[in-house]
Amino acid sequence: MTHDFSAPGNSERFHPLFKARHVALIGASGNPKKWGYVMLRNLINGGFAGNIYPINPDADELLGKKAYKSLREVPETPDLAVIAVPPQAAPSAVRDCAEKGVRAVVVITAGFAELGDEGGRLQDEMVTAARAAGMVLVGPNCNGIMSPWEKLYVDFPSYHVPPGNLAVVCQSGGIVDGLARRSMIRGLGCSLCVASGNEADLHMEDYLAYLADDPRTNVILCYIEGFKDADRFYRIAREVTKKKPVVAYKAGKTPAGAKAALSHTASVAGSDAVFDGICRQTGILRAKNLHHLFNLGAAFIHQPLPRGKRIGIVTAGGGWGVMAADECVSLGLEMAVLPDETIRRLDAFLPAWWNRGNPVDLVAGSAPDDVLRVVETLLAGPDVAGLLFIGLMPALKFTPEELLHRGAPDDFWGQAIVRAAVELVRRLNGLARQYDKPVVVASEHLISSAEQEARTLHAIGQSGNVCYEMPYEAAEVMAALVTYGQWVSDCRA
Amino acid sequence: MTHDFSAPGNSERFHPLFKARHVALIGASGNPKKWGYVMLRNLINGGFAGNIYPINPDADELLGKKAYKSLREVPETPDLAVIAVPPQAAPSAVRDCAEKGVRAVVVITAGFAELGDEGGRLQDEMVTAARAAGMVLVGPNCNGIMSPWEKLYVDFPSYHVPPGNLAVVCQSGGIVDGLARRSMIRGLGCSLCVASGNEADLHMEDYLAYLADDPRTNVILCYIEGFKDADRFYRIAREVTKKKPVVAYKAGKTPAGAKAALSHTASVAGSDAVFDGICRQTGILRAKNLHHLFNLGAAFIHQPLPRGKRIGIVTAGGGWGVMAADECVSLGLEMAVLPDETIRRLDAFLPAWWNRGNPVDLVAGSAPDDVLRVVETLLAGPDVAGLLFIGLMPALKFTPEELLHRGAPDDFWGQAIVRAAVELVRRLNGLARQYDKPVVVASEHLISSAEQEARTLHAIGQSGNVCYEMPYEAAEVMAALVTYGQWVSDCRA
Repeated sequence: MTHDFSAPGNSERFHPLFKARHVALIGASGNPKKWGYVMLRNLINGGFAGNIYPINPDADELLGKKAYKSLREVPETPDLAVIAVPPQAAPSAVRDCAEKGVRAVVVITAGFAELGDEGGRLQDEMVTAARAAGMVLVGPNCNGIMSPWEKLYVDFPSYHVPPGNLAVVCQSGGIVDGLARRSMIRGLGCSLCVASGNEADLHMEDYLAYLADDPRTNVILCYIEGFKDADRFYRIAREVTKKKPVVAYKAGKTPAGAKAALSHTASVAGSDAVFDGICRQTGILRAKNLHHLFNLGAAFIHQPLPRGKRIGIVTAGGGWGVMAADECVSLGLEMAVLPDETIRRLDAFLPAWWNRGNPVDLVAGSAPDDVLRVVETLLAGPDVAGLLFIGLMPALKFTPEELLHRGAPDDFWGQAIVRAAVELVRRLNGLARQYDKPVVVASEHLISSAEQEARTLHAIGQSGNVCYEMPYEAAEVMAALVTYGQWVSDCRA
Repeated sequence: MTHDFSAPGNSERFHPLFKARHVALIGASGNPKKWGYVMLRNLINGGFAGNIYPINPDADELLGKKAYKSLREVPETPDLAVIAVPPQAAPSAVRDCAEKGVRAVVVITAGFAELGDEGGRLQDEMVTAARAAGMVLVGPNCNGIMSPWEKLYVDFPSYHVPPGNLAVVCQSGGIVDGLARRSMIRGLGCSLCVASGNEADLHMEDYLAYLADDPRTNVILCYIEGFKDADRFYRIAREVTKKKPVVAYKAGKTPAGAKAALSHTASVAGSDAVFDGICRQTGILRAKNLHHLFNLGAAFIHQPLPRGKRIGIVTAGGGWGVMAADECVSLGLEMAVLPDETIRRLDAFLPAWWNRGNPVDLVAGSAPDDVLRVVETLLAGPDVAGLLFIGLMPALKFTPEELLHRGAPDDFWGQAIVRAAVELVRRLNGLARQYDKPVVVASEHLISSAEQEARTLHAIGQSGNVCYEMPYEAAEVMAALVTYGQWVSDCRA
């Protein structure tokens, strides 16, 4: 028996997990080389507001917190217990939780079904105990969960991804951490991160069902090695995608990968063609790698959905426009044909030599305000469903001499460049909202320092927007927006 | 008639261009908004050792250099003249150069064949004058050239890519600049960068022929919109790839892109299938986007070529290993089957729970020296032609607490992490050289600051190595190494 969280109202069963008031850590440690130390340290450093109860039979205090010999001694009932004890001791820890009235457990410990029969038996024992008590169980063999809006960080990395609107659910802890980190360094943040591990109790689809109704989640990213119950996943995912986009990367798509997945999380990868079919029929967008996965997630946080697939391109350099047009058409999008009226309106303010076609190549010398007028003129026309804006730098006001300044964080020009880039992207996204059409931005940053580039991208993210680097990335994002816009429209029809 | 630089000994005709002793800039300006100013500023800032002669009929001095009313007044003969005057004045400027005895001209000016018949006539006039005088002509409608070993920077961006072993030739100035910048911020540098523009005189294949014999160039990256003479390109490229790898991105592969290419550099894009055929038959490696292009270039700078396609994978996390195996097999590589002898040697020092297969999943807890022993054990076996190493961080000695430190550049831990990552990659590449098999590294950097990540990647580059981010990138690089290794072996057979 599994819980059916796809039924309305079942979200509440997840609150002890993702909105825990108090947390116990069974297997907490004072040894910095132990995960029981790292977990406790991260939980404390993350700023969790509730009580934290380290459980360790041999300690009185750990990291400044009073420690308890056993869960029984804890003076109140924590909603959530994190279990980081050896596998043989894990089933009894779960039974202790049940006895105490804990409602949710996260089992970090590895060494269960992924190692074979004996591990599988221990895993079954835990699940039976958890379900008998009505607890939900995450893992085992996982990195934990991060619930940034609640400052609840149960995970290995020492960084704390800030709150945001991107949810991440992965059958690999390392990949959750990688995506959360990327989201953080891009200034975006996460609504919820889950490493689902062996999925002994809660499956991928349970988290999806919860996130579908989570008001802070705009888009869900998944890393999938295999399904415990493909029919149930199919049924639930199809409902979730009506509410918000789900983007998935599937690993184990070749026999070699599938073999590796089996020893990683005891996942049976299944046929890649079947997964493709599931995606098409459930409206899940399939990502081809983790860069692609993240790029789509970042777009769905804030972009309006296009109605149609005719795309306008505004580019600050011929080669970039050629690549953008190529990539759009390769992905099944169409280049909008600019009607005479649009051409006439652009003629009114663009230099005489402008190329009078789509892509609109601004090359050098266009004033920043003219650039925005071009974007607005295209968006205002009936022929453009969405727009790619390729190349920020020429639209900024800086001279090449000013751009030379590499700039420490307190450098005047360095800061000015970051501010100008943020402001331009903000205005582009303002136009996107005003015309309810997506404007996807990609740009090389013609600045000589990678650190300044990193600061720029972070600041753009913090302003609620995204800047990709390459035209192919922008085109892939636009294609996904078009596909999902069509899915939502078909579902409503 | 075009020069045939594919004949031996013709490299010397390029020396006035790429190894110019003295340079004139016709159309130099004191107005920071003019390209004639930017070019002069960049040339001076780049540290060029020869004389620089600004030519401007209305100035006596520009940026501290004595200016001349005309080229005739310059007291010596510069080898190279850069022309940045309006298109109508360009043919007469080229004739002035011929009269003075200049040997090479770079025509920055746009407004020629890419704008239609009248521009085409002006362009022909320039080329006729240049060829009659035995000059080589780069452009027109281009961003110029950068010859970093000579500190000769004739280009728009204010940064100066350092000397290195990567050559870049593009039919788009913006893309040259983007690739050069990427090479710079990754700590690699360039041997030569050329924006070939309309290719009125020198074609893509002329630069390839020169670079084939340039001892400082290990690999050539191209961005191609179309060919002026496809037969000649084919003939020359086939010879070049016997000497060093050529990686090309082709734009204008769809009708929309081809149309954009025509208005960009007057290029006729031709059929994409034909280009694919040319690549296969000439041994050119085709890149699918500019990230891919750069990634392959960075690998060919220093990696040994594999003899075979059986790959070993060492991974610090299950999910990463699954993805790496998937990507390798998807690209036609094979997973090496570890023989009993290799397993036995690994058993001797790995923990009991290691997965005894390929990918070798080290997960957490392996000592750094053990990690290197695993790599060496795999490389020493006869079954592994090359190795992917996925995930640096667990092999470094830092505790999660230490990794928390975000670190300004002078931060102790920040610097320590950079040093440790550089040292690990250096040792991995040392093993690659020792066993004459490629070791391709990809890693998420589990550090919380994008700036520190940027510093790490730059430092790894400066040490002569590369670290990619994602398993798919490492697999793509390995597949290209295998393909080119096979090509070279076939050519020699």
